[in-house]
This record gives sequence, structure tokens and C-alpha cells, in this order.
Amino acid sequence: MEIKGFQFSAVEAAIKKPGRLDLALIFSETPAAVAAVYTTNKVKAAPVLIDQERTQSGVCQAIVVNSGNANACTGPRGMDDALETTRLVAEGLGIPDETVLVSSTGVIGVPLPMERLRAGIRPLVDGLSGGTLEDVSRAIMTTDTFPKLETRCGMAGGKEYTIAGIAKGAGMIMPNMATMLAFIVTDAAVEPEWLRTAFAVGIERSFNAITVDGDTSTNDSAILLANGAAGNTPLNGAADGAADFVRLLDEVLLSLAKLIVRDGEGATKFVEVTVRGARSDADAKRAAMAVANSCLVKTAFFGQDANWGRIFAAVGYSGADVEQERAELFFDDVPMVKNGVFAGGDAEARGSEVLRKKDFSVVIDLHLGGGTATVYTSDLSYDYVKINADYRT
Amino acid sequence: MEIKGFQFSAVEAAIKKPGRLDLALIFSETPAAVAAVYTTNKVKAAPVLIDQERTQSGVCQAIVVNSGNANACTGPRGMDDALETTRLVAEGLGIPDETVLVSSTGVIGVPLPMERLRAGIRPLVDGLSGGTLEDVSRAIMTTDTFPKLETRCGMAGGKEYTIAGIAKGAGMIMPNMATMLAFIVTDAAVEPEWLRTAFAVGIERSFNAITVDGDTSTNDSAILLANGAAGNTPLNGAADGAADFVRLLDEVLLSLAKLIVRDGEGATKFVEVTVRGARSDADAKRAAMAVANSCLVKTAFFGQDANWGRIFAAVGYSGADVEQERAELFFDDVPMVKNGVFAGGDAEARGSEVLRKKDFSVVIDLHLGGGTATVYTSDLSYDYVKINADYRT
Repeated sequence: MEIKGFQFSAVEAAIKKPGRLDLALIFSETPAAVAAVYTTNKVKAAPVLIDQERTQSGVCQAIVVNSGNANACTGPRGMDDALETTRLVAEGLGIPDETVLVSSTGVIGVPLPMERLRAGIRPLVDGLSGGTLEDVSRAIMTTDTFPKLETRCGMAGGKEYTIAGIAKGAGMIMPNMATMLAFIVTDAAVEPEWLRTAFAVGIERSFNAITVDGDTSTNDSAILLANGAAGNTPLNGAADGAADFVRLLDEVLLSLAKLIVRDGEGATKFVEVTVRGARSDADAKRAAMAVANSCLVKTAFFGQDANWGRIFAAVGYSGADVEQERAELFFDDVPMVKNGVFAGGDAEARGSEVLRKKDFSVVIDLHLGGGTATVYTSDLSYDYVKINADYRT
Repeated sequence: MEIKGFQFSAVEAAIKKPGRLDLALIFSETPAAVAAVYTTNKVKAAPVLIDQERTQSGVCQAIVVNSGNANACTGPRGMDDALETTRLVAEGLGIPDETVLVSSTGVIGVPLPMERLRAGIRPLVDGLSGGTLEDVSRAIMTTDTFPKLETRCGMAGGKEYTIAGIAKGAGMIMPNMATMLAFIVTDAAVEPEWLRTAFAVGIERSFNAITVDGDTSTNDSAILLANGAAGNTPLNGAADGAADFVRLLDEVLLSLAKLIVRDGEGATKFVEVTVRGARSDADAKRAAMAVANSCLVKTAFFGQDANWGRIFAAVGYSGADVEQERAELFFDDVPMVKNGVFAGGDAEARGSEVLRKKDFSVVIDLHLGGGTATVYTSDLSYDYVKINADYRT
């Protein structure tokens, strides 16, 4: 798969255990319009601080990313290390330093092994001729069990373009950029201002609508580069093909977000939680997120227990407006609760059957208004505990 | 142990599995001053709705409580069942219906087995002569592994009094009354208004400062009865012995709260999380609670992994003001982080040693102001998942 005007590379720099790609590069042959969303965590890793400043210009040309070390809580040294990394990449590529972004993911609080990282930059730049985006998607994995890559093709002004994205999860997944990296590249030409809006809206419905454990991280970044190599007239809200571009971008983002949930640490279930009939969309999202984040709800999912009471309790403490005697709850299309009480009949048996599936949905109708939201979550299993209890050892 | 003017009873009503006490009664021979705090969950169980109204009078005489069934999300029928329960108890005791409170804990969404509960009321009332508060503490257990009972004795105006409290956990423990029941009785005479204030303040520092899984429930209630049988002049803020009473009440509340954390579902660690140097006490509590509730932090505790980075990340997303380059972090008295970065030296080794203990503390100093807060939490273990995945089966 080719995305015009982009080159990719990934190498083993021995930041992770030997034998695994851990340093990668995305390079646009020409300066590209950039849109980005970063963690809302007040403790931000050095690379996030650098990228936040650099993306303000609206133009970037390269992203260098390592896994195995988050370069977070590393103080002034961490900042120096991140800046040196971008400088070495800029020199290798012959582009201005300020157009190089940097991302890191992995253990917090340990300085980057700069000697090994430095040694990796030259082969990384040299490898651009032969690498693929799929290589990059592998290089950014931490506890991910599979690489995450999505592509869509579209037409704008008679020109064919591609949108391709990669992402990594898998723990610390929560709205507002949890430990999550996502890089999306497109050869479509897009007006920078409009690109930022389209990206922000898409993120809200995708990466900000998933949760694995309610923890947000210090490093999350979602970055989109659009280099215009497809040759179309730059897209904006009024342009032919704009709606299509937004739809395809949303598809890429949502597909990647869902893959992250599927690959949630220890996940055995993929659950879509929809709240409708809320007083507002914000209320709906609050309620849906409370359900999706509840340890008690998620362990019940793991136990395949149709314990709708815990779901109700989570809605109740979410802060959303609730009148319990109006609320309805469904597992897939099985009504479990009507007017706030158990639906009776064979609901228990049928509900339990739904919970035995690997993928199912929980729908809560509050019957109070028109607010609605859908979020995606996993269950909480023994393996979540195992993975996170042993992470650094 | 006797608390003057109080009688207790507990029976097997077959609401839980056979062979376990599940219906209990606390009776004050004379009307008692009452103070109470209930769940902030918007989905409230029927008994909570009834008690909220009845405690407004400031006077109550009995509390009937069952385990095995929460009588939550049970609609109008649940309300009828709870009201009938208090009526039967009031008839048996020969006191006004409105002075009887009712509490329930257990599975949500299943109607109370009223036939068995009704049959249990007569033996319950008859048993008052022979029962103890310890019996009641056993009857309110659900997934608790041990009963929780604390007593203190004090003097006021030359009269000796006792404060005795019982509580049950163990999952769904979170501030603002998670699934937690606590009943405190004292024979001290206390002015109702002042009793309410003292109780509210004590609750904030104890039951509202513990968390097991961040879930708040539909049924939480903490109720204090003071019947004055000790014969002292009623206590108020100006009275001799008032400060002592507050101190002893706080001790009972905090001891019970800590017992709940120790008995947290699957808990293998007891962790005290203190945040100091915050901009405000509220900020400090926000940050401490974010740490205490983080699944990633709690699994690291379980894994005995001195992963301070996750703790920092949790502080960062808590909403509290943070300047990472100022923050310090200690495990017990071992400095792990200075000026936002790893303290170096033998900190890793010494920190890991602390984490291997069953009880330890995490102290975060934000160096921004005088705000401070301490909360108590457990780790997140395989057994938490096991207990909650299998709860209803």
C-alpha cells in the first residue's frame, strides 16, 4: 500500500527487548498540514510538550517515535533527549528541526537509552526507501498483541487519495488521549484549519469514546499529516468530496479505536455501551463512560454475569440526570429492565446468553431527552491484573 | 459489652444461603437522637429513600437490616416491601412506624423474599433479650471475610459512656457512601444538631476517605443513634467532654473504615495515600483519590512493583493543580522522586522493599501550597476479579 509522498522506516534500537522493532519514522517528502490532539494529563511527557509547540505552526514533515520508554517524568534531561532525537532526525533528513515531531511510549520515569537511540537514527533514515507503515505499526507496540492499521481510499476533485492510520493501545486507555499513540497520514490536500476541525470531531467520536481502565497517560498523542501529494484542490468544508473525506477519516479513527479496545490488556469481551434518551449528549457520555469504566461492571462482563444492577448503579453515580423509574436497559436487543425494574420472564436467561458472546452491546435508555452517546470498552479479567502487576518485571 | 439502653438481635431468615445470619435488629429502649449519611448515587435503593425521610425528624428508635438482597432497582414493589418490613418491626416493638429505619445490602434488582423475611421478624424481635452487636455485625456481612466492630469508652460530665460501631464492606467502596453499611450506637446523651455535625465531619475523614474500586452503590448508609442512657448532660460544642467525644467517635469511624479497606475484595495490601503541599485540601483529596482508584496503580501494588510513574500519571489526570518539576514522592520514608524525576541511587531497591510489605504509605508532596488529604486503599488482585466475576453465581 502506497500513500503518495510518504516514506516509512522502522528499526531495532534495543530500547525494548532484543528482536523487536522499537524506533520508527514517518516522513513526508514535502511539508504536510498537521492536526494533533494530546493528552489532557497535567503530567506531560517531554515529547508531548515539544510536539504541542511544534504543531501550532500547522505544518510538519516527520514523526520519529520509539516504544519501550515513555520519556515521561524525566525532567530537563528528558527534554534534552527528545530535542536531540528530533535534531538528529532533522539532520539526517535535511529538513528544519521544528518540522520533526517526536513520540515515546513505554515505561515512565526512566531516561531514554540515548546511546542506543542515537545509534539507531542513521539506519532509521537510511531505511526509509524500504519500509512500510505496517513496520511502523509494529514498532510502536508495547503490551499490544497485534499491530493496528486501517486504510481507506477516496476521491476528491477527480483525484484518488488514501487515508491510512496506525495506533497502539493497550492499557491506560481512557478518553482525552489515554496511553495511546495514533498516527494518520493522507496524501489528500486539505486546508490546515479545516483539517484540525475534522480531526478534533473524529477523535471525540473514536479515541475519546473508548476506555480500558480509566487511566489517562502522560504521552498520548494522535497526529494527522496531510501532504497533498494526491494533487486535489485542498479540501475545506465547502469543497466537493469534503463530506466523504470526513466520513473516511472517521472510519479510520473509529476502526483504530475499536481495535485498541479489542486489544485491551487481558480483554476477552468487546462491549459497545450506548446511552440514549439522556438530558444532553454530555450527560449520555458521562453515563456511558461510568458504565464502561466500572470495575464491578467489567468484572461482571468477564464473568458473563448479566448483572444489570451494577450497570444501573454506575449510571446512578455518573453525575448524569437519572429518574430510575423511567430507565430501560437492553443487552443487545433483549430488554432486561423496564421502568427501572427487572423485565422478568426469560430476560435473565436470554440476557445471560448475550453476555456469553464475545461482542455485545449494552443500551440504556433514560427516557429524559434526546442526548445520546456510544462508547466502547472491554472486560476486566485475570489477565489485566497479570499484565499490569508484572509490567516492569 | 453493653451499651446502655440498646438491645440487639440477629437471625437466619434464609435470605442468604442457609446457615448464615442475614436479618438483624438494633433497638434503643428509648427514642434516640439520630445522625445519618446516605449514598450520593442517583439510583437509590428503597430503604435509603425511606430512611432519608425518616431521619429528618432527628429521632429514631430501631434499625432493621438484611443482607443477601439490596432491595435496589425493585420499583414500587421494593418500596412496599421495605415499608412492610418497618411496619412489622414497629408492631413487634410497639413503637411508631416512623421511628424504624431499614437497610439492605446484597444483590441489586431482585425483589426481597418477603415470605421468608416476614417469618423472620417475630424471632428477630423475640431475640432482642439475648443478642449482641457482634451478632448484628455478622448478619450484615456479604463478601466480607470478617465482621467489623469497634468500641470506645469515654466520660462526659462524670458519666461513663460507650461508642460502638459496626460496618460491612467490601466491594463498591468509594467516597460518598459506597456499598457500605455502618451503624454506630452510643449511650451518651448528645444534642441532635451537634451530633449531626460531628458525624458528618467524622464521615468525611473516614468512610469518605476510603476506596476499593471506585464504584459507589445504591444502598450505602451510615447511621448513628445516641440514646442518652449514660445520663450525662447532653453534649454540644460547648460541653465538657465534647472534644473527647468527637475524638472517640472519629476513632471508631476511622477504624471501621480502615477495616473495610483491609477486607476489600481480594485485597492483599493496605495502602495509605497522602497528598500534601496541594493548592487546597480539595485538590489534595482529588489527587489522592485518583491514585487510590487507579487500576494501573493498584495492580502495580499487587505486583509489588514500585511503579511511581503510574502514581504520577494518576495525579496528573486527577484535576488537581500539578507542576511536575516540583513534585516529590515517597514510599514510606523512601524518597522515590525529587523535583519530578526519579531520585536515583538505591531508591528503586529500597522502594521495592517497601512495596513488599503488607501495609505501606505513598506520600506525594506537590510543593504548591498547604492542602493535604489522606485516603486509604487496597490493591487490585486476581481475587478481586474472581470475587466479582462470580458474585451472583
